This record gives sequence, structure tokens and C-alpha cells, in this order.
Amino acid sequence: MKPLDDQQQAARDWFESLRTRICDAFTAIEREAGSDAEFAFIPWERQNEDGSPGGGGVRGQMTGEVFEKVGVNVSTVGGYFNPEFATSIPGTEENPSFFATGISLVAHMKNPHVPAVHMNLRYLVTGKRWFGGGADLNPAIPYEEDTEAFHARLRAACAAHDPTYYDRFSKWAEEYFWLPHRGVARGVGGIFYDRLDAAGDLFEPNFAFTKDVGEAFLDIFPQIVRKRMNSEHDDEDMKRLLDFRGRYVEFNLLYDRGTLFGLKTGGNIDAILMSLPPLARWS
Amino acid sequence: MKPLDDQQQAARDWFESLRTRICDAFTAIEREAGSDAEFAFIPWERQNEDGSPGGGGVRGQMTGEVFEKVGVNVSTVGGYFNPEFATSIPGTEENPSFFATGISLVAHMKNPHVPAVHMNLRYLVTGKRWFGGGADLNPAIPYEEDTEAFHARLRAACAAHDPTYYDRFSKWAEEYFWLPHRGVARGVGGIFYDRLDAAGDLFEPNFAFTKDVGEAFLDIFPQIVRKRMNSEHDDEDMKRLLDFRGRYVEFNLLYDRGTLFGLKTGGNIDAILMSLPPLARWS
Repeated sequence: MKPLDDQQQAARDWFESLRTRICDAFTAIEREAGSDAEFAFIPWERQNEDGSPGGGGVRGQMTGEVFEKVGVNVSTVGGYFNPEFATSIPGTEENPSFFATGISLVAHMKNPHVPAVHMNLRYLVTGKRWFGGGADLNPAIPYEEDTEAFHARLRAACAAHDPTYYDRFSKWAEEYFWLPHRGVARGVGGIFYDRLDAAGDLFEPNFAFTKDVGEAFLDIFPQIVRKRMNSEHDDEDMKRLLDFRGRYVEFNLLYDRGTLFGLKTGGNIDAILMSLPPLARWS
Repeated sequence: MKPLDDQQQAARDWFESLRTRICDAFTAIEREAGSDAEFAFIPWERQNEDGSPGGGGVRGQMTGEVFEKVGVNVSTVGGYFNPEFATSIPGTEENPSFFATGISLVAHMKNPHVPAVHMNLRYLVTGKRWFGGGADLNPAIPYEEDTEAFHARLRAACAAHDPTYYDRFSKWAEEYFWLPHRGVARGVGGIFYDRLDAAGDLFEPNFAFTKDVGEAFLDIFPQIVRKRMNSEHDDEDMKRLLDFRGRYVEFNLLYDRGTLFGLKTGGNIDAILMSLPPLARWS
């Protein structure tokens, strides 16, 4: 893999520092619940099809009393797309080489009143350069005020950068996190964005926006967890949780671009499928 | 939907009678285990894209003490493929109309020592006519002798019709029921066949073969269930069961043609996803 340029290094460094702060925040919640759960960090390496080093990442995973299964991955990879995939990626017309660095997180929670959550931020370089990412909330038992709080925090992060971002990106999330075969949304949405131009002078403002999305997530999600983590729940709530997770599995295996892309390009299976819930039900 | 011709009606009648005999056999096993579980039979109808009647089916499902979740579907559908799919189906070059009748079955068992199983038989008519189907065994905890007995019975059914069938169709199953992203088989195989010509004089012999596959399944699977259904099992066995079912979900949502085809052509969701296990785990 080629040495990173300053922008690539800056993005990587920031994603890795966000990973550390998120893991610390989640571990602190475990302590409040009287658990001594810790993240295990498992590094993995990637090879290009020709056997050359293609970067790698670190999969962080914790099994706790509040977080039933949470994975926080960082990865920085580079090499060549195989021609079959290159056609679907912007900026690969003249050169199939790519660089990608990012963080991705999925948390499945033990208490059915605490929402699951997904967050992902990434910086891509081909012949073009862009940011992408987003965060969405996935409650088995939705609370209007949690949905409101989550969206409000992301709306504020968006508003600081561009008055159109929240409307565009929350709509994008609505469309993306959708199960057409059931005609239902995966969760209660959030934001999703991609191909946010990072060429030239656009790197700084759009990196700043991407960082603010990460900060918004780190600010709001732990608040929602703390609010719900001690809620009473019964068998009926647990059934709702397990059925809801079944829908989550369906989305990720049938539609999620990242999952399908990773599986078909020989990515790290454990890191890719880390998003799947610890237990799910199809009744 | 057009009236059925004699061959279509004969295939449909036989698949439906096999359904009844299988459900009776499975219910008898529940009685031996002291359970009064019964199949619920839920009819569903299908519409073509233009709103015209497109046939339908009956989803049979039982939740018992031995069969944790078993679904037995029969369906007889007809209409027009939409152009996007027609290209992948033989015999639709001149006319996109199709007819299909079949039975499909998936059983997920409570005791981790009893294998899950899948069986499917179908008769298709487009500009061409053909049979397809197969059966494969999916033990979380494999026993060599069960695998042997299952394959031996299918081998005998094949041998009565064509000396090449078992080798070809068991190899086809090996290739088909494979998870490339993990480099593992879904289970211990069986047979899989498709596009077995049913034109003209070939209808009778290949219908006879298809019936014998159904009979072989009905003969051997209950024997394996009875042999293992009272096995002792512990927490470790249960974990193996739930992890194994995770792989089963991955196969069906990522690769199974029938599942993806059904979801993308607006099939009956409950019937299509009946194959998914009652509970699965990704640790």
C-alpha cells in the first residue's frame, strides 16, 4: 500500500481517535451498570488480489451488560478494485486504484427499550476524493422523544455546515434504510450521505462536517442509552427485540451495500458481519 | 391464471398430496414426543403486476416440541415474468408467460442433535417445461451415519432412474449449498437438480424421478429425527445450534436463488422467509 498523503493521514488519525473516545464512552456506561466488560481489539490485514499488502484494520468488540454486542471497526485499506466493481465506483475510469479509511459501528443492546444504533464515517480516494457516512437509530420499541433527540442532534450538526444537509441526508437515510420486501423502514432513521466532494478546497469543510457527525453521535447516543438502560422489560418486549433484529439481519444481508461489497471483495468476514445481532428470531 | 393442463394438474396434485403425507408424518412424531402441536395452514394469493390473478399457495407451519419451526409450502402460480427476470429464465425468449407448481419445506429442530432439513420439488412451464428440486441435510452437530443414511436413500432414488443422476446432482448440491464468503458448506449436502427436461415423452420419467425424490425424503428424514430426538444436549450444543443457524440465514439471504427471486418478484414474504430459523446467533 502506498504511503498516506496528509489528508489521508489526517482522516485516518481522526477516525481512530473517535474510535477510542467512543469505546471509552461505552465502557464507562458498562461501569455504571456494574459490569467490567472491556473491548477486545483484533487487528486484521488485507491483501490485494495479487497478494500485495492492502492495508487492514482493527475490529473492536465488546460483550457487556448494557451493550449485548457492540462492534467498532476502523480500517485503512488501499489497492486496486477488480474491474467488475470498479465500474460502480466514481473516479475509477482511468485508474482502478483506491484508498479508503473509515470507522463503522453497530451496537445491539441487551435491554429492548434501548435502541440499537449504526454509525459509519469514511473517506475515499480514487481519481476523485469524497466523504460519506451517517448514523441511524434502530429501536425495537420506539420512543418518540428518543427519535426526536437523535434527529435534533444530527440536524444541529448539519445546520452548522449547510442549510440543505439535514433535509437531504435524512431523506437519503429514509430511502436507504428501507426493506422493500416488507415495505417497512429498518429503524427510525437518521442521516446518510455519500460522495460528498473532498477535492481541493472542499476537503477541509467536508472533513469538518464529517467530524461533526461523529461528535454528534458520541454526544447523543450515550444519553439515550443512559435514559433507557434500566427500563423494566418483560417477555413480550424481548420477543419484539428478537423479531426486530430479524429485520435488521434481513436488511444487512439483502441490501446493505457495505456488507455485500465487503463479502464480494474478500473483506474480513468477522469485521463485515460484526453488524449482525447476537440473537435474532424469525417467528 | 389460465386453466391447468393435465401435466400441470398432475404435478400440482402430487405435490399437494406429498405435503399432506409429510405433515401427517411430522405430526405423528410430535405425538410420540407427547406434544399436540398441529400445522396451521394459511392460504395466500398472488397477483400479476397488472393486477390479474396469478395463483397462490398454502403455507403450512408448525411449532412443536421436536420441530421448533417447520414450514411446508405448496404453491401453484402463473402469469408473466417481468422483462428484467425473464432473461434469466429458459424458454421465455418468445413469450414471458410462466407456470410453476411446487412444494418447499424447511424444518428447524429443537434438539441440536437432530439435523435441520430442506426439500423442494417444482415443475416449471415457460416455452420449455422442466422439473427441479432437491433435498439437503443441515446438522449443527453432524453424525457420519446420518449423513450416510440420507445420501444413501437419495442415491437409491436416483439410481432407479439414471446411473448418472446421483453423482451429478449430489455434486450440484455441494456447489450450490456453499457459503463462499466463509469457505464452508451450508450443511452436509444431498442432491440438487434443475432444468430436468419435461418436454413431450420426458414428462413421465422425470415426473416419476421427482416423485421418487419426494418419497425418499419422506422415508429417510423421519427415521433420522426419531433416532436423535431424545438425545441429551447441553449449553455448548445449543450454542453450536444457534451459530449454525446464523450460517443458514446467511446462505438464504445472500445466495439462495429462490429466496432472492421471490423477494424481488413480490412473492409472499411469510412463505419465502419461512425458511429462516426461529432463533439464530452471531457471536
